[in-house]
Amino acid sequence: MNETVLLLGGGGFIGSHVAAAATAGGYRVRVFDRQVSPWVTLPSTAEVVIGDCADSMALRAALAGCMGVVQLISSSVPGDASPLGREVRDNVLPTLDLLDLLPETGVRSIVFASSGGTVYGDHGPAPITEGERLAPRCSHGVGKTVVEQCLAFHARTTGAAVTILRPSNPYGPGQSPMGRQGVIPIFMRKVSLGEEITLFYPVRDYVYVEDLAAAFVQAVGASGGLRVLNAGTGQGTSLESLVGLIESVVGRRARVARRDQRGCDVAANILATDGIRRTLGWRPQVDLATGLARTWSWLQGTL
Amino acid sequence: MNETVLLLGGGGFIGSHVAAAATAGGYRVRVFDRQVSPWVTLPSTAEVVIGDCADSMALRAALAGCMGVVQLISSSVPGDASPLGREVRDNVLPTLDLLDLLPETGVRSIVFASSGGTVYGDHGPAPITEGERLAPRCSHGVGKTVVEQCLAFHARTTGAAVTILRPSNPYGPGQSPMGRQGVIPIFMRKVSLGEEITLFYPVRDYVYVEDLAAAFVQAVGASGGLRVLNAGTGQGTSLESLVGLIESVVGRRARVARRDQRGCDVAANILATDGIRRTLGWRPQVDLATGLARTWSWLQGTL
Repeated sequence: MNETVLLLGGGGFIGSHVAAAATAGGYRVRVFDRQVSPWVTLPSTAEVVIGDCADSMALRAALAGCMGVVQLISSSVPGDASPLGREVRDNVLPTLDLLDLLPETGVRSIVFASSGGTVYGDHGPAPITEGERLAPRCSHGVGKTVVEQCLAFHARTTGAAVTILRPSNPYGPGQSPMGRQGVIPIFMRKVSLGEEITLFYPVRDYVYVEDLAAAFVQAVGASGGLRVLNAGTGQGTSLESLVGLIESVVGRRARVARRDQRGCDVAANILATDGIRRTLGWRPQVDLATGLARTWSWLQGTL
Repeated sequence: MNETVLLLGGGGFIGSHVAAAATAGGYRVRVFDRQVSPWVTLPSTAEVVIGDCADSMALRAALAGCMGVVQLISSSVPGDASPLGREVRDNVLPTLDLLDLLPETGVRSIVFASSGGTVYGDHGPAPITEGERLAPRCSHGVGKTVVEQCLAFHARTTGAAVTILRPSNPYGPGQSPMGRQGVIPIFMRKVSLGEEITLFYPVRDYVYVEDLAAAFVQAVGASGGLRVLNAGTGQGTSLESLVGLIESVVGRRARVARRDQRGCDVAANILATDGIRRTLGWRPQVDLATGLARTWSWLQGTL
């Protein structure tokens, strides 16, 4: 019998792709989420449990029989300026309570979706390696670093397999064009409709979601101990270049309204890929032009 | 008019000495605590507010008119093996909620009592500098590192003066001989009564509480930005040597029952003092023999 992986947040953008990749990789998949996003498609074989991760009874039931857990749930996004107390209550405590449940389960491997885009803070235009100082500039990033610390403690004291993945900016089919984050589908939709777009940060590292999903699945199969790994491409793209690529994919000129840098936005964020290549043998397969074409092809079918 | 400093946990062992040192240093002192320890004496001029730091209304009222806050409250000790979720709820969230209150107050300086004895984890017998990797082995230490991260974020994004002090093992008058931590008064009492003592960790850095209190007061007067400082002596003492010193101070032989190393205890913990000497000009004044004599003198008066 295939082993079961629990995907917390499996009904969301990244989670749905992890569900597909895990299914293709021979795992049985159990999705646990408050809802399934109307923008995503889950594998027909996935078991779907609708529940809240703050409900420890529901979580305990969902963990039964699982060998691995992937934690993708987050109620905040980098642009939020929520108070630290709320960030920790909403986005740290549920994961800590999950850790406290694990000893009574058969879970051997935990993979956590951190945030390569926010945990480092302002680090300049060079690719950032995992050992660099963490200095987030938004409470979302602080919440991620706090969970990372607690996961490191868990790995250190229990010997469990713990992988912390720090994705850069994921994009691809299934990402809402109406969401609070995900500049690519948002811009594609607006450009296609002739609506104004707002440029608010310069250089980012865009990773195609199917590539990212593969990294999550490889991580869940890793053995004991702690791994902290960037999951990006090592390539930076300016927002101007991105808009140019979107214009050619969508076939329409963008109307760029104004520039507006938010306090929490760093000038550049590019993730070094040596660590994940060495540790998991993972590297991105889909270049930005190809990924954008696939994203637009999907998005056209939904608009 | 003198400036007012709020001492959260000012009714405890360390806090009462900070209250005395701050008063001597020309500050007005407001103590906020759930209780005043029966073992301590507070300055007669200190204003005492009995309250719970989880009560944000009470905390807000206590902050009124203060220029600085010293946060000494902790409900856990290193030997606890409490779940991470409980540690964060009890010992992290109140401090984060405090930070969220500060912008509407006149507070310019925050000093946090972290734990030099636990945040580093196992680092061998050499004095540990502040830049070394944090790898706590107990949830108490994880809670401290989490608050440290959040304070660093607060300093980075608001420009407030934030000092994180990492004391080694404090001892001295006012430390309960019946408490869950503080091996010196516990051993002194037991040795004096002919009771068995249990040796459970090897080498520690004992700092006299009046020295430590002076570091807190110097820190509260520091200007904007973040400082992370050990507050120890740089000197390690084995538990065997300590027991020998206690025997000569108390004038009685110890009955040593057995050895028992707890999982959370590290073999050695000695803190490098260069950082705090350079930054605050602080150095310990009271050597261990003198401090033990003063502690025993105080303890004799209470037994």
